[in-house]
Amino acid sequence: MKKNDHNSLHAKAIVIDGLQISNWSKTVFQNNQKGGVSALTATIAVHENFRETIRNITEWDRMFKKYSDLIMPVRTTSEIQLAKSFGKTGIILGFQNSVPIEDDLDLLTIFHKLGVRVIQLTYMEANYAGQGCLECIDAGLTGFGREMIGEMNRLGILVDLSHVGYQTTMEAIETSAKPVAFTHANPKSLWDHPRNKSDDQLKAIALRGGVIGATIFPAFLPSGNKATIEEYIDVIIYLIDMVGIDHVAIGTDFTENQPRKFFDWLLSGKSKKGPAMTLNHPLSNPRGIQYPGDFPNITKMLLARGMDAADIEKILGLNWLRLYREVWEK
Amino acid sequence: MKKNDHNSLHAKAIVIDGLQISNWSKTVFQNNQKGGVSALTATIAVHENFRETIRNITEWDRMFKKYSDLIMPVRTTSEIQLAKSFGKTGIILGFQNSVPIEDDLDLLTIFHKLGVRVIQLTYMEANYAGQGCLECIDAGLTGFGREMIGEMNRLGILVDLSHVGYQTTMEAIETSAKPVAFTHANPKSLWDHPRNKSDDQLKAIALRGGVIGATIFPAFLPSGNKATIEEYIDVIIYLIDMVGIDHVAIGTDFTENQPRKFFDWLLSGKSKKGPAMTLNHPLSNPRGIQYPGDFPNITKMLLARGMDAADIEKILGLNWLRLYREVWEK
Repeated sequence: MKKNDHNSLHAKAIVIDGLQISNWSKTVFQNNQKGGVSALTATIAVHENFRETIRNITEWDRMFKKYSDLIMPVRTTSEIQLAKSFGKTGIILGFQNSVPIEDDLDLLTIFHKLGVRVIQLTYMEANYAGQGCLECIDAGLTGFGREMIGEMNRLGILVDLSHVGYQTTMEAIETSAKPVAFTHANPKSLWDHPRNKSDDQLKAIALRGGVIGATIFPAFLPSGNKATIEEYIDVIIYLIDMVGIDHVAIGTDFTENQPRKFFDWLLSGKSKKGPAMTLNHPLSNPRGIQYPGDFPNITKMLLARGMDAADIEKILGLNWLRLYREVWEK
Repeated sequence: MKKNDHNSLHAKAIVIDGLQISNWSKTVFQNNQKGGVSALTATIAVHENFRETIRNITEWDRMFKKYSDLIMPVRTTSEIQLAKSFGKTGIILGFQNSVPIEDDLDLLTIFHKLGVRVIQLTYMEANYAGQGCLECIDAGLTGFGREMIGEMNRLGILVDLSHVGYQTTMEAIETSAKPVAFTHANPKSLWDHPRNKSDDQLKAIALRGGVIGATIFPAFLPSGNKATIEEYIDVIIYLIDMVGIDHVAIGTDFTENQPRKFFDWLLSGKSKKGPAMTLNHPLSNPRGIQYPGDFPNITKMLLARGMDAADIEKILGLNWLRLYREVWEK
C-alpha cells in the first residue's frame, strides 16, 4: 500500500460530519476544509425559542456571505455534492432540540423553508415532544411529539434522537415512517454513560434503515480525556460489527473553541441548579482526531484496520448521504 | 375589429394585479382564473407583528397545497411566466406595512427567504420607517427607514409607497437605488383624497423607472360607489398622459368578501378611537370591474379607446413584470 493511499481515498470521498457545535469562525471553517469535510450538520439551536432561532439563522446568513470561499448552505444531497465539487464545506442547518418550534407545528414548515434539515426531538430534559436522556421521568413520546414526527416525515426533516430518553427514543423509531438517526452517540455496552445508547436502541435504529454517527466527544469514550483515535476507531468497528456497514457514520460533536460557560449553558437547560451532567474540564479530544483538520486520520486508520475503500466511503459520508436522500427527498 | 379581439388579446397577455387584499377562498381564486390573472400581489400582513405574519405565511402554505389547481407561489418573474403557462394565478406575497419586521432589519432576510417580494413602508400611520398618509405628522423617512430601503434594495424586495405620507414618499423615492411603486393609488388631481397622489409624487415615481397601479377602490374614484369602469379607464389614460405608457399598470385593491369589521380593523390601526378614514359602506366596486372575473373588460375598454395591443399589454402586466425583474433580479 502506497503511503499516500489514504490521502487520495479521503480526497475522493464525500466526507460528512453528522454533527458539530463549534464556536464558528473562519478558523473552524478552514479546519473543516483542511479535513476535507464536504458537509456537516451545524447545530444552530439548543435552548433557543422561535425568535432566538430566527436570529441565529440570520447570523448564519451573514457567515455564508462572509465566508463564501469556505462554506455554502446545503439543503439537498445534490447541493452536498456541489459543495464537494467546489472544495467547500456544505452546511446543513440542524437543531439539537425541538423547542424552537414552541407550541406550533406549523413552524416546522417555516424552518424547513429556511433550510433546517435535522431536528433532535429533545435535548437533555423533557419538552413538548418527549423526554431527554437526563430527565427524571422517561414516559415516552407525547401526542405533540407524535404529530411532530409525522410533520417532519412529510416535510423531509431528519429526526435525531442522540440526546433523547430511552422510552421516547424507542417510540420515535417506531412512530417515524422514515428512518431516523443517532447523529452523535456511542454504544453504552462499550462505555456506560447516560448519553450513550443501549444495543437494542442501536439495533432498532439500524433495523429501520437509520444511521448512527460515532462521536469523539471524550465523555462518551471509555478513556475520556485520555482517549486516542485508536479508541474512536474501535467504536466505529464495534458499531459496524453490531449493526452493519450501512448504518454507521461519523458524528464528531466537535465543539471547537467553545468556552467553559458554553458547556454550562448547554447542560443547565431550564434548571437553576446548574449543569445536569459533569464534564472533566478542560476537555481534550482524542489524540489523532482532535479537530476537523484530523479527518483524514480516520480514513488512514480504517485502511490500517484492513477495511476496503468502498466500506470506508460509506462510513465517511455515503451512509449519511443515503439517509439524507431518503428523508429529505422521498 | 372582430368581436372577440379583446378576448384573444387578454388570453395572450401576462396579466398582473399589483394588489389584492381579499378574503381568500376557492371562489376568489376561481374569479382570478376567470379574469385571466397570471399573477397578483396578495397582502399577507397589515398590522401583524413578526410572529403573526409567520402564522399568515403558514396559512398561505396550506392554501397553496389545497388550491394547487388554481394558484401557485411565485418569487421570480420566470415563475410568473410559468404560472401563466399553467393557467394558474401566481401569488406574490406582499406586506402593506413594515411592522412585521419589528425592530430588526435582519427579518427582511427571513421574509425574503420565505418569498415576500413587496413591502409597503407604512400603512396609514407612523411606524419605525416613516409616516403614513393619515398620520398627524409628516416628517419624512427615519434613519431606520433609510436602512430598510437599502436592505430591501440589496435583497430584492419592491418598495411600495401607496399608503405612505408625502414627505416620507418623496425621500423614499430619492433614497431607493432601485425604482419603487405606488402599487394601488390614483391621481389626487383627478380626485382629492388623502390616499391619492399628487402629480409631483406620480412623476417622481415614473422618473426613477417606477410603476403606478391604478386602483378601482371606490373611495379613490371621483364617483365613489357610483363609479363605472369608464371612470377607471379614465384614470389609466390620465396617468399614461401624465407619466408615460411604461409607468402605469393595474393595482385593483380588490377586497372580495371582506366584512365590514375587516375595514374597521384596517383603518383603526394602533388607535383606540376607531377608523381614521371613513368609507361609504357598503362599498360598491365600479360597474364593469366589480371583481377579478371582470379583468377582460379592462382590455376591451382600452381597445375601445383606440390603444394598440402592445401598449395594452404593458398596462396589463408587462410594466409590473419589468419592474419586478429590475427590483427582484438585478
